[in-house]
Amino acid sequence: MSKVFSTSLRCRLPCLLFFFQGALLLLFILFVTYDEHTDAASQSPDADPSANQLYAFFSLFQDIQLMLLVGLGLLLAFMKGYGISAVAYNFLMANFATQWALIVQGFMHHYHQGKVHLGLYNILTAEFAAVTVLISAGAVLGRTSPLQLLLMALCEIPLYVVGEWLTVTRLQAVDVGGTITLHVFACYFGLGVSIALYRPGLQRGHPKENPSYLSDLLSLVGTMILWVFWPSFIASLARQGDAQHRAVLHTWVTLSSSALTSFATSSLLEKKGKLNMSHLQNATLAGGVAIGAVADMAITPAGASVLGIVSSLACILGFKYMTPFLATKIHLQDQCGIHNLHGLPGIIGAVGGIVAILWIPDEAYGLRLHQVFPPHAPPLGNISMAETTSEGQELGRTASQQALYQAAGLGVSFVVSLVGGYLTGLVLKLPFLAQPPDDLCFDDALYFKIQEPVETWCVVQAHEDLHLPLKDNV
Amino acid sequence: MSKVFSTSLRCRLPCLLFFFQGALLLLFILFVTYDEHTDAASQSPDADPSANQLYAFFSLFQDIQLMLLVGLGLLLAFMKGYGISAVAYNFLMANFATQWALIVQGFMHHYHQGKVHLGLYNILTAEFAAVTVLISAGAVLGRTSPLQLLLMALCEIPLYVVGEWLTVTRLQAVDVGGTITLHVFACYFGLGVSIALYRPGLQRGHPKENPSYLSDLLSLVGTMILWVFWPSFIASLARQGDAQHRAVLHTWVTLSSSALTSFATSSLLEKKGKLNMSHLQNATLAGGVAIGAVADMAITPAGASVLGIVSSLACILGFKYMTPFLATKIHLQDQCGIHNLHGLPGIIGAVGGIVAILWIPDEAYGLRLHQVFPPHAPPLGNISMAETTSEGQELGRTASQQALYQAAGLGVSFVVSLVGGYLTGLVLKLPFLAQPPDDLCFDDALYFKIQEPVETWCVVQAHEDLHLPLKDNV
Amino acid sequence: MSKVFSTSLRCRLPCLLFFFQGALLLLFILFVTYDEHTDAASQSPDADPSANQLYAFFSLFQDIQLMLLVGLGLLLAFMKGYGISAVAYNFLMANFATQWALIVQGFMHHYHQGKVHLGLYNILTAEFAAVTVLISAGAVLGRTSPLQLLLMALCEIPLYVVGEWLTVTRLQAVDVGGTITLHVFACYFGLGVSIALYRPGLQRGHPKENPSYLSDLLSLVGTMILWVFWPSFIASLARQGDAQHRAVLHTWVTLSSSALTSFATSSLLEKKGKLNMSHLQNATLAGGVAIGAVADMAITPAGASVLGIVSSLACILGFKYMTPFLATKIHLQDQCGIHNLHGLPGIIGAVGGIVAILWIPDEAYGLRLHQVFPPHAPPLGNISMAETTSEGQELGRTASQQALYQAAGLGVSFVVSLVGGYLTGLVLKLPFLAQPPDDLCFDDALYFKIQEPVETWCVVQAHEDLHLPLKDNV
Repeated sequence: MSKVFSTSLRCRLPCLLFFFQGALLLLFILFVTYDEHTDAASQSPDADPSANQLYAFFSLFQDIQLMLLVGLGLLLAFMKGYGISAVAYNFLMANFATQWALIVQGFMHHYHQGKVHLGLYNILTAEFAAVTVLISAGAVLGRTSPLQLLLMALCEIPLYVVGEWLTVTRLQAVDVGGTITLHVFACYFGLGVSIALYRPGLQRGHPKENPSYLSDLLSLVGTMILWVFWPSFIASLARQGDAQHRAVLHTWVTLSSSALTSFATSSLLEKKGKLNMSHLQNATLAGGVAIGAVADMAITPAGASVLGIVSSLACILGFKYMTPFLATKIHLQDQCGIHNLHGLPGIIGAVGGIVAILWIPDEAYGLRLHQVFPPHAPPLGNISMAETTSEGQELGRTASQQALYQAAGLGVSFVVSLVGGYLTGLVLKLPFLAQPPDDLCFDDALYFKIQEPVETWCVVQAHEDLHLPLKDNV
Repeated sequence: MSKVFSTSLRCRLPCLLFFFQGALLLLFILFVTYDEHTDAASQSPDADPSANQLYAFFSLFQDIQLMLLVGLGLLLAFMKGYGISAVAYNFLMANFATQWALIVQGFMHHYHQGKVHLGLYNILTAEFAAVTVLISAGAVLGRTSPLQLLLMALCEIPLYVVGEWLTVTRLQAVDVGGTITLHVFACYFGLGVSIALYRPGLQRGHPKENPSYLSDLLSLVGTMILWVFWPSFIASLARQGDAQHRAVLHTWVTLSSSALTSFATSSLLEKKGKLNMSHLQNATLAGGVAIGAVADMAITPAGASVLGIVSSLACILGFKYMTPFLATKIHLQDQCGIHNLHGLPGIIGAVGGIVAILWIPDEAYGLRLHQVFPPHAPPLGNISMAETTSEGQELGRTASQQALYQAAGLGVSFVVSLVGGYLTGLVLKLPFLAQPPDDLCFDDALYFKIQEPVETWCVVQAHEDLHLPLKDNV
Repeated sequence: MSKVFSTSLRCRLPCLLFFFQGALLLLFILFVTYDEHTDAASQSPDADPSANQLYAFFSLFQDIQLMLLVGLGLLLAFMKGYGISAVAYNFLMANFATQWALIVQGFMHHYHQGKVHLGLYNILTAEFAAVTVLISAGAVLGRTSPLQLLLMALCEIPLYVVGEWLTVTRLQAVDVGGTITLHVFACYFGLGVSIALYRPGLQRGHPKENPSYLSDLLSLVGTMILWVFWPSFIASLARQGDAQHRAVLHTWVTLSSSALTSFATSSLLEKKGKLNMSHLQNATLAGGVAIGAVADMAITPAGASVLGIVSSLACILGFKYMTPFLATKIHLQDQCGIHNLHGLPGIIGAVGGIVAILWIPDEAYGLRLHQVFPPHAPPLGNISMAETTSEGQELGRTASQQALYQAAGLGVSFVVSLVGGYLTGLVLKLPFLAQPPDDLCFDDALYFKIQEPVETWCVVQAHEDLHLPLKDNV
């Protein structure tokens, strides 16, 4: 059936992108102006230039961009003939989704006096939104056209903004590194899409799904880049000072524990103790997903280490047992194993947050309690620093109450994303979206004008030389 | 004819490099000393160490080095058997040209009390000079020996310094991100060289010019690295504070618009809507070239977006129609398409600067007008901050006058570079410079002791296996 | 003989890693707590968040992590079928060794009131310790199992901490960038291990030792990353202010001189003047190794340039003449040539430090003499800044005395590492450590579940196609 429709992107991709970029440009012209950090006219003559907000996070912003476009791009490039698509679509979606989030978040959070006020900080928060799209796409990578991926981004971004608003603004759940609002949301949205896009023809695997030696190596390099800059990602939205320092420290400790645990567990589960590349590429990052929910809490380095160990264990067990189980039982195709890297560690991190809130006494935070837990801390009487008062502070919840709200936040994120993802997936089945037919999945050559990868070429050539029939379309 | 001369680098390359490094060392010994930021003896006892100039730009400096040596190196490594040369020559030229610019700029701008005063900031500005060489080399990549490339750097650096002095110091044109002085200059210098080095034998293409699957992928990764750190490049010479913040914001917006426009346009122009790799590798960066001329002006985010859209459109149309046209009509061989990525967007950016100066009212800058437009702003009566007064401020030009000077700056940059490049190219035709013969162009093995790339090897092998004659020297 | 024992990692690698991570977790739980920069409860209400220690070095820390995990990983990935091992083991060892150093250094230097106090700065110094392991492993790369590498890390870290304590704390040798304590130590430790692990069967080389075209290219990219971020590494432990600025400036100048000298020398020594990849991959970094001992001294840019030229010359001459000589005469197998990149430049740097101390007059440092040379400077009478007084300052050594102590530091580092390495090597010969047999050395497939690299595959295929016997196990 899927072969009936054209897979040509001509006209369709340009139309979508030009229309989108044109519409956004119109909104920019009509509504977008500078914020107080970027507007020249509103600078006071005695303002200290080095105190501009830019310097509080610009190097973190660059780190995060490198993570997303190079690190994640390479990590996704693990299939032998789909590396160019992985890097290019990742780049395309990141830009599409960030611009879109800039507008959606802008009208939602930064609209006053008839204008959306823009500085680099807005782009940072918009990139967080875009990350959800990049993660979700991992579930359907190689089985979707760029048109489908862009439409997915179009649907996912507003839903993410709503989900985040419900979880963080309404429920006042604490989630400094986006474990609940970002990773859990992105994972179940992606799985929802994947369920809707289920293809029986790919149930028994596809010859082009496999990595080559070099794609495995490049993917591992991508993991390294993500691993290195993960602390910047987690810390970027944490409060300046000791909170940000704790976030960085915890993230390093949890990632390092994840790394050692991944090598150990992979070797334990594979024949002859050999190390499995997809375990190393993914599970070494699992702690980074989990830590987001608790990064600035006083969980102690030991707590961070436990979280890293448990998350990477869950991730590898997920790859080994859960992914095949889900594929067989509920027809869930999860191309990059996002459930193992984002779903399970995300839930573990969210639960860890609840445990941490119940377990750690308020005294561990001293005067910083108001910063780390605005809704939990008692209202402040006399505070000298303006930035310590923030939304939610008047709530005065007990720790148990806050724990309940955290659980509610996790539930909201899970339900909204899974349902939203499934509905989005149904939309993506529309016939004019150039979805690749089964036999042309996982193949760069379908949408890119490129050389065939040498690996494929060599295999083909060798078979021809030996006069062997070619099986599996290789 | 070109085969008559030896292509051996032995003696010639070592002689040039040892002589150059030796001469520079002599100049360092005789004339170079620390500046006030690096000299221990001149530090006052109560100086705040954290206020050292280093911290204002060190992380930007590292970002830029990564762009140049890894990002640009990989981007240039798009030919299947010329990746090692691309990365290695890029590295060699960057060092040669930066050291040379350090001396030339040092004697021109930092020479007082009989000494050239050196700090890391000098290396940053010298690297800007070196970038021109790296860009220009793109026009003749693969058709030149390292000796020729180094001689080109030797000629280009002083000319760049003169061109920049004419444009920025004499004409007081505003160009914070180097669109006019750097990109336009580098492009037409490179094209001048290329015209002089025209080879009829390469007119109909060369079998080794093509990318392989992996070289295309690595080149795209290079694009990603350049894309990510471009804001650091543009902002590094902008004034601290809101001006630098605007520069970063505009650069991101323009690059993002370029990215989406590139995907759209490439798909529109290619058969079956397939995406063309060289479009994605280049045009996604076009906005970054153009934005340099206006990065800190109050062009609004919408203006930055327009610039990104127009630049990437021009870049792709250039690749599709202008490069073949120029190659046929005026025998202009432009290996990496620098005219499309640096020439056209550079001119667009320069024109954008003129429009912005004429269009944006002075009120948009408030008290910052003196910072963004020293020659345009009226002389200041009473300024509290010392750094707001700068050269040119007494000129008091009208906006129209400033616009004329901008146009003059563009003209000077264009003429000086094209003529200088052509004359340099004539010098590079000297017979003892080890220029590769036509059939050994685009081949790493000529100047490097390496393994043949597997792609070539496989092709050769397959042809041998099949007893087919090898055509095209593959 | 070596074939008698199993090479399966199953049980052994998981046991070692789980036991190690478990033991460390126990120590974390019992003894590790936050330091004053990360502990929320101990923050005073009026503390300036932007003055947190984190911001003094976080971006340097990220740079260094990128160097170690991506840069060094890729540099080591130069063998055609051992790239995955190189990157993965480098990652594994880095985490294992850093965690281990965190505990060893923690109990040695940061233990008070019954607790080890932890902040990100501890992780930075622990990573310096881990670097020694990563360097040492270069001597035996491909001939060792991951078990052996981890055991080596287990032995090397405490010895490094002791060696550093002897050199820096007891002898008060000055070594801001770790030339003596880190590079010289790591090199001779690794060579000691290699001597103990000598294998006659590999004396005449191994077919898989060679690079492929792409592994050579990726390794060069690794060099670029290391080259770019080397200034961050050298400067990270230097004092803030002009000292750190000098360290960065000197490192750039020395690296740049090394780069040009490497191209010149390589071309001089190879047939037809071709450039040798291993020269470019290594010798361009040699100056960075040497500069560590003198980075913040007033050696002038010319001095830094001389150091870069001499170091890279020594490095290439080492590759060309010394490595073959040592291999033949004393059976020293040095897989990555660490003696050329770390040993010789390390000794040159240490000697350079002695010369600089004897040569440069105290006046060149002014009031900063106490910062650069605590043990050499006369005791301070009246100092306003608290951080200028430091351990050793009361010693009041003359320059000649200090020079002698520097030489003693070099000697201690050399002897402790060589003997310690040899003894460690003897331990690594224990039969149950899964050491690879000769014919399976340098082969990713032994310990990883992967695709064969296409290069190997093509070669095999070609031989089969041509009905040629396969020699050398390729």
